[in-house]
Amino acid sequence: MIVLFTDYGIYDPYVGQLKARLATEAPGQLVVDLLHAAPDFNAHAGAHLLAAFAPTFPPGSVFLAVVDPGVGTARHGVVVMAGGRWFVAPDNGLASILVARHADSKVWRIDWLPVALSSTFHGRDVFAVIAAEIARGEFPAAKLSECAKLEVEFEAGDLARVIYIDHFGNAFTGIRAQTVPVTSRVAANHSEFMHAEAFALCDKGKGFWFSNSVGLLELAVNRGHAASQFGLSVGTPVQVQKPY
Amino acid sequence: MIVLFTDYGIYDPYVGQLKARLATEAPGQLVVDLLHAAPDFNAHAGAHLLAAFAPTFPPGSVFLAVVDPGVGTARHGVVVMAGGRWFVAPDNGLASILVARHADSKVWRIDWLPVALSSTFHGRDVFAVIAAEIARGEFPAAKLSECAKLEVEFEAGDLARVIYIDHFGNAFTGIRAQTVPVTSRVAANHSEFMHAEAFALCDKGKGFWFSNSVGLLELAVNRGHAASQFGLSVGTPVQVQKPY
Amino acid sequence: MIVLFTDYGIYDPYVGQLKARLATEAPGQLVVDLLHAAPDFNAHAGAHLLAAFAPTFPPGSVFLAVVDPGVGTARHGVVVMAGGRWFVAPDNGLASILVARHADSKVWRIDWLPVALSSTFHGRDVFAVIAAEIARGEFPAAKLSECAKLEVEFEAGDLARVIYIDHFGNAFTGIRAQTVPVTSRVAANHSEFMHAEAFALCDKGKGFWFSNSVGLLELAVNRGHAASQFGLSVGTPVQVQKPY
Repeated sequence: MIVLFTDYGIYDPYVGQLKARLATEAPGQLVVDLLHAAPDFNAHAGAHLLAAFAPTFPPGSVFLAVVDPGVGTARHGVVVMAGGRWFVAPDNGLASILVARHADSKVWRIDWLPVALSSTFHGRDVFAVIAAEIARGEFPAAKLSECAKLEVEFEAGDLARVIYIDHFGNAFTGIRAQTVPVTSRVAANHSEFMHAEAFALCDKGKGFWFSNSVGLLELAVNRGHAASQFGLSVGTPVQVQKPY
Repeated sequence: MIVLFTDYGIYDPYVGQLKARLATEAPGQLVVDLLHAAPDFNAHAGAHLLAAFAPTFPPGSVFLAVVDPGVGTARHGVVVMAGGRWFVAPDNGLASILVARHADSKVWRIDWLPVALSSTFHGRDVFAVIAAEIARGEFPAAKLSECAKLEVEFEAGDLARVIYIDHFGNAFTGIRAQTVPVTSRVAANHSEFMHAEAFALCDKGKGFWFSNSVGLLELAVNRGHAASQFGLSVGTPVQVQKPY
Repeated sequence: MIVLFTDYGIYDPYVGQLKARLATEAPGQLVVDLLHAAPDFNAHAGAHLLAAFAPTFPPGSVFLAVVDPGVGTARHGVVVMAGGRWFVAPDNGLASILVARHADSKVWRIDWLPVALSSTFHGRDVFAVIAAEIARGEFPAAKLSECAKLEVEFEAGDLARVIYIDHFGNAFTGIRAQTVPVTSRVAANHSEFMHAEAFALCDKGKGFWFSNSVGLLELAVNRGHAASQFGLSVGTPVQVQKPY
């Protein structure tokens, strides 16, 4: 399974070209769109999202992960193996949370460039080709060189900020909810959020937090738009005060 | 064929997780996105949309239908067979128009819950698994119990309201157009709409109604945005006065 | 491979119905979404986009191209072979740039109409069926008649206007960049754009132009939204003054 995680948007003709390239290079492989609305230009938020979503896909999945404002500059592309899954991405930190959190991580730098290379669409011209080869079971060793580590690494702990707003207005944070007791005080932008297990168990219009379906602390409102109501956007800091 | 009908949105990482689950549980099954912009939290509008669209898919298709503001509460999930097609949905009325309109309808309640169950994503954790089993041809009888009827039922007649606005600004109503003579007076929000067969046959900027491609009465404007021009939104009442 | 190029939008239930029809008529064929946000009602911009994107897909691909404000009127449907690829489209100019630019072009008019024909969704009812037959390798000669030329033809040269705005705010023009020296003066809406090879090589907030991944001259801003910043929209004229 090849899983797409990009900021290419869903309106635009980029994903289709990517899929055409994948279909040519790895015919018959299932391609799943995970997210094409990763926060634009924001590899840091993207890195935390990718780390949270990856475990919901089968081991052996190949992720094509592109949030790449540095495309066309000297930044490298990398292949990462972490947690039994593969990631093909720019070396701008996007895969770094995954690498840091998995003991089995391995990193390879992509040395290869195709003859026909656009300056702005390495997702199609480089990463898709590499991902297709891995998905076919033909590891492209000749195009890669193993590295001790990534060039760009983000801090591997939780990110206490909003990292994604979904279309319901719910705000994902980069905080793993497992470590947050339900009696903690959670706040963002001067508003407090109580814990609730499910949307319908919370009063209409009242902010609450819960452990979402990928294990992140998420801020929401029952039948309301939390981001608008509380002024949350990607990057908004989130405060968690655990009980004594 | 597994057909997806949800309010998960197309931007967000929910559909991708659903598809990964379906691919794991029913490898090789075609999955078609019908609609991920079903009106949020609105099972009533969704029920009329689903009933109108279902017949355009082949008999035997399995619909995974999720508009589910009650997720995480005591509401049940159901499996419905109606008109030769399968529907897996929450028991909140979403499948009730289909059940009422088909003489062959059967209803089963989903008794099963997986060990790993999120509180907010039963689409992925429960409904996708059941839908995949039906699509594989392995009816999951042990996870279901047959019921005489649904717990939540909407009135089976036409719904004389706007139930969907498409990106052109055209407004679907819950009125089946077959029963509406072309000389009827049709109005919404104090504006009248004449009948026309096709967009280009109507004056630019003038509102008209027609029988759309799934048989519903639809309000539109040639090369214009009917919803903005006439102040229509999901829920706006529509008046139809048939000729004597 | 069947490639979809439409103005059906990505929110709406049109693409899903199209895919269900394709799956019924051509089981097992890969269907790729290239673009469903082709400028509404604008066959001219669409024609230039389609001509630019087509070569990025494998020879033999079948494009289902629908930007069709005249649906339900007397306009014909056509099948076009150009550059080794197939196109099924309304005869409103949408395929005319492709025809004009390829020496091997052939044109057939679609004479066939199905018994069950909606007035507004010929994409599903007519074009999908024809495209599926071609994709299956069964050219539907009995439903077509060969023509010397299209009924509607746009001028085959470059279109010096904005033809698409992507979600980053970048503005595609209908100008093929290969013929534009990098020292040319490029302007739109009273703003000048310098040439740059890649986003990150340009100062933040400064407008620049580059040859995009399908060879069109594109206007952009590093980490900014060019369309908002410079007031660009589909149709905005673009001036190119080549150096002496």
